[in-house]
Amino acid sequence: MSRIACVNGRYLTQLEAAVHVEDRALQFGDGVYEVCEVRNGRLIDEQRHMARLWRSLREIRIPEPMDGAALGVILRELVRRNRVVNGIVYLQVTRGSAPRNHPFPLKPVRPGVMATAKSLNVADGEKRAAQGIGVITMPDNRWGRVDIKTVGLLPNVLAKQAAREAGAFEAWFVDDAGNVTEGSSTNAWIVTADDRLVTRHADHGILSGITRSVLLDMVEALGLTLDERPFSVAEAQSAREAFLSGSSATVLPIVSIDGVPVGTGKPGPVALRLRRMFHDHAESAPAWSVHRVRGQAENHG
Amino acid sequence: MSRIACVNGRYLTQLEAAVHVEDRALQFGDGVYEVCEVRNGRLIDEQRHMARLWRSLREIRIPEPMDGAALGVILRELVRRNRVVNGIVYLQVTRGSAPRNHPFPLKPVRPGVMATAKSLNVADGEKRAAQGIGVITMPDNRWGRVDIKTVGLLPNVLAKQAAREAGAFEAWFVDDAGNVTEGSSTNAWIVTADDRLVTRHADHGILSGITRSVLLDMVEALGLTLDERPFSVAEAQSAREAFLSGSSATVLPIVSIDGVPVGTGKPGPVALRLRRMFHDHAESAPAWSVHRVRGQAENHG
Repeated sequence: MSRIACVNGRYLTQLEAAVHVEDRALQFGDGVYEVCEVRNGRLIDEQRHMARLWRSLREIRIPEPMDGAALGVILRELVRRNRVVNGIVYLQVTRGSAPRNHPFPLKPVRPGVMATAKSLNVADGEKRAAQGIGVITMPDNRWGRVDIKTVGLLPNVLAKQAAREAGAFEAWFVDDAGNVTEGSSTNAWIVTADDRLVTRHADHGILSGITRSVLLDMVEALGLTLDERPFSVAEAQSAREAFLSGSSATVLPIVSIDGVPVGTGKPGPVALRLRRMFHDHAESAPAWSVHRVRGQAENHG
Repeated sequence: MSRIACVNGRYLTQLEAAVHVEDRALQFGDGVYEVCEVRNGRLIDEQRHMARLWRSLREIRIPEPMDGAALGVILRELVRRNRVVNGIVYLQVTRGSAPRNHPFPLKPVRPGVMATAKSLNVADGEKRAAQGIGVITMPDNRWGRVDIKTVGLLPNVLAKQAAREAGAFEAWFVDDAGNVTEGSSTNAWIVTADDRLVTRHADHGILSGITRSVLLDMVEALGLTLDERPFSVAEAQSAREAFLSGSSATVLPIVSIDGVPVGTGKPGPVALRLRRMFHDHAESAPAWSVHRVRGQAENHG
């Protein structure tokens, strides 16, 4: 089955899908992106992802490439053409292609739009959640505006690779004060002994995750008190629970941090409950984003 | 005249020149680059640029894409095909194309190699040098390893754009201690009242510029004492001279910093002399990099 990508409005096979050699995302990291979960063929939290994309574009002054509804059509078409039931769509918007020069192109260019979709194995995710995952920590050496979801992800790449080589699933970045900011592609959470749910406040130092924002809305139902504040590696290691959140991972319990077991050393009940609640939320996604899978007519109703 | 680029060993017109939509430089900023001056059809300081490229690749563990001599052949071929007499060649090496996932591809992929060449107007540069240029300053919010010449340049793009909008040529980054690190695409220098040439020491906080390294070799001939140390914005504003260095700009005198005139408010003698010395150095580049311009046989002798 050949995978289909969409580049600047054209649907292309993965083999053909290419962008110009002077696209500014390629030469300057001058682009932003979103990754949106697909569950049961539906785009999850599409409106929140689009709102964040629009914010990212505004922050670095890339013009809106088209309206959000049109982008949504592309994403759903990719889900359909790639027959993704459970997986992700990836959407990138760049400042466009122009002869290489640092400042914005003097002559306005069309923003570049690239999107891909792929299936993820649900069973792998469930197994990971049942076992819990390990994280390592490393100094946060990223730039000062990681709240903007740009494609300048090399520090994240190096951190994730270090995690893999250490046998861990994720790497947590730690700031100069010794506090955890976030993971290389996920947000970081702990549950304290006195039933407080703690995750770092969202400023320029973390990405304000969409899954994070959905979880924040669920806290009340759980009877937990929320603290949006920094926490140290030591506090996390001695917490009752730790977990991470992200669009691909949804919610995953953390059972060790730098090799130190967290809580009982097994997935904690709050993390597992939030994971279930998030999946319930995803499965109740609006019907208008439903498509039928085997080449049948799409339902944008 | 259609411009010619080289992508993964193929020479293509600019219109055709494209890279895969999942090239990791496009999606992660996972690539490094060099910009090499071309003067009188010769590549300037090619060996130093290649050595730095190799170092960048090692630092982020991208395998060498081919041997340096083969890359040099590509660059000279691009100079020839684009009939560049004075200008630059741009060379980028990426970790290659693979289904999007943060860590390095598990199955090894071929690094991507992309190169372009273009002419620059020598008269523009000379005019700029004769008039001197202005710089503005802004907080250095880049990641912790700007010594690696990666394509993750968005902070530099935003800084250069801010400079342009302020009517300046360059933006200087200033660290938390109030010291200038470097410009958005150039190194920063001052000359003090007591004949000391000052430029920030090269560690992880600046890119060790090739033009900078050539100038360092020339200092003795100038009868100046070199201090490789940080300097503040205030020290630069009250210095006798200030200037910048880079592969495209070579050496440019700075006549104002955040609107404050430097020295006499006119290009300083040390900057102008170093510029001349650098051009003499460039014009004495080894003959083996010479090519003849109008389609005649290339001379790699």
